[in-house]
Amino acid sequence: MEEKRQGEGLNVKKEENFSDWFSEVIEKAEIVDLRLGVKGFIVIRPWGAQIIENMFEHLEKELQRKGHKPTFMPSVIPKENLTKESEHIKGFTPEVFWLKSIGENQELALRPTSETVYTPMFKLWVRSWRDLPLKLYQRAHVFRLDTKATRPLIRGREFIWIECHDAFASKEEAEKQVQEDIDTTEKVMHQIYGVPFFPMKRPEWDKFAGAEYTVGSDCFMPDGKLIQQPSTHLMGQKFSKAFNAKFKNKEDKEEYLWTTAYGPAVSRILASVIATHGDDSGLILPFSISPIQVVIIPIFTNKNKEEIMEKTSKIKSLLEKKDVKVHVDDEAEKRPGEKYHLWELKGIPFRIEFGEKEMKSDEITLFTRDTKEKKKIKIADLSDIKKMGEEFDRRLREKADDFSKGRILDCNDKKEIKRAIESGKMARVNFCSTEKEGIKCAEAVETQLGGDVRGTLANKDEIPKGDCIICGKPATKVVYIGKSY
Amino acid sequence: MEEKRQGEGLNVKKEENFSDWFSEVIEKAEIVDLRLGVKGFIVIRPWGAQIIENMFEHLEKELQRKGHKPTFMPSVIPKENLTKESEHIKGFTPEVFWLKSIGENQELALRPTSETVYTPMFKLWVRSWRDLPLKLYQRAHVFRLDTKATRPLIRGREFIWIECHDAFASKEEAEKQVQEDIDTTEKVMHQIYGVPFFPMKRPEWDKFAGAEYTVGSDCFMPDGKLIQQPSTHLMGQKFSKAFNAKFKNKEDKEEYLWTTAYGPAVSRILASVIATHGDDSGLILPFSISPIQVVIIPIFTNKNKEEIMEKTSKIKSLLEKKDVKVHVDDEAEKRPGEKYHLWELKGIPFRIEFGEKEMKSDEITLFTRDTKEKKKIKIADLSDIKKMGEEFDRRLREKADDFSKGRILDCNDKKEIKRAIESGKMARVNFCSTEKEGIKCAEAVETQLGGDVRGTLANKDEIPKGDCIICGKPATKVVYIGKSY
Repeated sequence: MEEKRQGEGLNVKKEENFSDWFSEVIEKAEIVDLRLGVKGFIVIRPWGAQIIENMFEHLEKELQRKGHKPTFMPSVIPKENLTKESEHIKGFTPEVFWLKSIGENQELALRPTSETVYTPMFKLWVRSWRDLPLKLYQRAHVFRLDTKATRPLIRGREFIWIECHDAFASKEEAEKQVQEDIDTTEKVMHQIYGVPFFPMKRPEWDKFAGAEYTVGSDCFMPDGKLIQQPSTHLMGQKFSKAFNAKFKNKEDKEEYLWTTAYGPAVSRILASVIATHGDDSGLILPFSISPIQVVIIPIFTNKNKEEIMEKTSKIKSLLEKKDVKVHVDDEAEKRPGEKYHLWELKGIPFRIEFGEKEMKSDEITLFTRDTKEKKKIKIADLSDIKKMGEEFDRRLREKADDFSKGRILDCNDKKEIKRAIESGKMARVNFCSTEKEGIKCAEAVETQLGGDVRGTLANKDEIPKGDCIICGKPATKVVYIGKSY
Repeated sequence: MEEKRQGEGLNVKKEENFSDWFSEVIEKAEIVDLRLGVKGFIVIRPWGAQIIENMFEHLEKELQRKGHKPTFMPSVIPKENLTKESEHIKGFTPEVFWLKSIGENQELALRPTSETVYTPMFKLWVRSWRDLPLKLYQRAHVFRLDTKATRPLIRGREFIWIECHDAFASKEEAEKQVQEDIDTTEKVMHQIYGVPFFPMKRPEWDKFAGAEYTVGSDCFMPDGKLIQQPSTHLMGQKFSKAFNAKFKNKEDKEEYLWTTAYGPAVSRILASVIATHGDDSGLILPFSISPIQVVIIPIFTNKNKEEIMEKTSKIKSLLEKKDVKVHVDDEAEKRPGEKYHLWELKGIPFRIEFGEKEMKSDEITLFTRDTKEKKKIKIADLSDIKKMGEEFDRRLREKADDFSKGRILDCNDKKEIKRAIESGKMARVNFCSTEKEGIKCAEAVETQLGGDVRGTLANKDEIPKGDCIICGKPATKVVYIGKSY
């Protein structure tokens, strides 16, 4: 098969080989470049960076609306901080990048996450319950020395995220924050980016190092594997005890702070956006985050060029007045067909073709990226473009929802589980326990069935009926089992 | 002297001891926190972070308007890249933070700057003159192992900046970019943040390691010392030759790319904003970048509280409709006087006091932070708030301009130079050369007079008359001498 060049579509079909399709589309659509040659560190090109910037904008807006304020913490963490909470450092030790000694009396790590700098600051900034809650975040790059195979955007050694670190006066408020974080994931990742998820309270053996519990967001990839997106953690008083971070409560008594953390990795969520919505022609970007929402391709001859371009610029103005991001592709050297392919590859929601015929009837030809429908509409009707954008995004979201919902299967024995996860689904089963005593059954799931116990739904109480599908003891939980990235 | 607490103003007067004033104001106004205890790495608190975010917004908008597109490059650079351009690595070697070996066959540095990752990407992304110019930027943290005394925001080991890396088809276009970068500094740092600067073409011995030449922006601090703000560099073909980054020109011949770099360090520019505009009551923030532009202090008794608060919220809506950032400080436990002090310390441009008297006459009392003028105006007149904000910023800028312009002194002998720089001014003098042969005279300036040759004006040709003020040979340049940070 001859290699297709940019503007000629993709070589691999998404259905046939998702993994190769993903690798091809992120390079051809100019999201990333892997040729710098540093394992786990990638170059994000302008098209990818612009999408990420738009994703950040929605996310930060929602976080700020919920009372979070920005900060900038150092990218390095002194060893004495990083090692203060014993479970935390035990979990993170193998993943830490350390700086070479600079001859000063302090060992420094590149931050893998920032609990151990926020908590000592809470200690300084919070005196009494009046200073609470304190809800902070930073947009940051973090570094984890993953020794497994890295995959661009999905699993890297550096990723771009927002980390929220919040402090509260009670466990109840902290737990409410965990639910609020799940709501933020719903409002932004699902409602705006169109990526559905299952909020999973992770089993004891799979929580964040140092947390009381963790809720991860599990999203299906097209191949049926699960990828963890934003997770939120109830730290309880673990970090505040390690750092002696106290406050005076309403009874004027000293008490340790209750803290939480929430970490949406925007570069990783982009992987889900691409994987969820894209097709064999390339990316399909939600209208809400596409750097170009409408591309206009004027089609002209030497004879009518002036007139066509004049009218094109009027259409552009009309759309810009509606606060829509428009690009006119009037490059003279490319044929319209080439341009169509290019902008389909890049995932632009709407394409306007405007030539002699359209001009005569005061119309445009509108191509819609997801449905690939082409139709003529009156220029004046473009004033509905925002609504069309909302409908576009709703279609993407609903399609993703359907895919996701259809992949949960109730299973009653090991064979059914195996069949489920091998066909790219998640098995819902009765299980003995997600506390420590359940780990043996979880290990059996891994070794015998090739799946992971992802946890229990965090936003719904599901009551098990019957016995643990592995050990046969009375079940206490309904857990989900799937294959993970 | 008793230590003043937050809300009670500052202990140190700016005129008397600028350095101590600066240290005090950045901590009391909650811009930074130095108590994490890592030399050169600081915590930027929400108030500081919000100002920085606003500064970024203006800067990125201007860069995008001029055709720059965002990217995200890895925070680490492999040694083989960093060492490729010989002058570059010679200059940066002492300042590089290296990562400890992770047992893989590659040494990694934390980026001090990113020419050595952008240039190899240019090589991959640019095929012919049709792909040029290519103008990219990233918002990034960079790391330099400064062994001198660090000062928060002014001189750190990590700073937050934007770095632009641009590639062109000719030297002429690249040099135009250098001028465009100076224009960006003018449009943003001077016109929007209100910080004036002298664009100085640095002498040969003071240019960026690897550049053909460097233009730095020298800004006066209130103590008369100079701080370097954004600099722009003509790299010429030095990096493109090191990385073999070529393009096909219009004659279809291969040629090395012409590159430039521009690096505004936003965290450092914030230091100039604070230093330039602040006074003995605290910060004074330009209206354009203040996270709160108007603070409303309702003054009520139990009796009229409801009415006052209702009217206050109407005033708030009126201002928000004008797209102004408003905060209502209705905290019950603080006296109005305390609130006044607090928000003056934080630098809010306008304060509205609204109580019984004001309500009766349909007025508000307006306090203006820079002039400290208090006056009653009709509520309806608040619809001019944006214009008032523009005037506020113009006043700050003009005051800063006056300070800056008055500090250039023509000097005719060493004694005059010494007197000038000791009184916090910049001496303008005739000088033999800013090429290599001038370095001896520059060394004499440093050792005998305690000043630095900052360079020649980059936006104005100044013709020297007479001889070099140091060696007496015929002068070829008019240079500026000052004390630097």
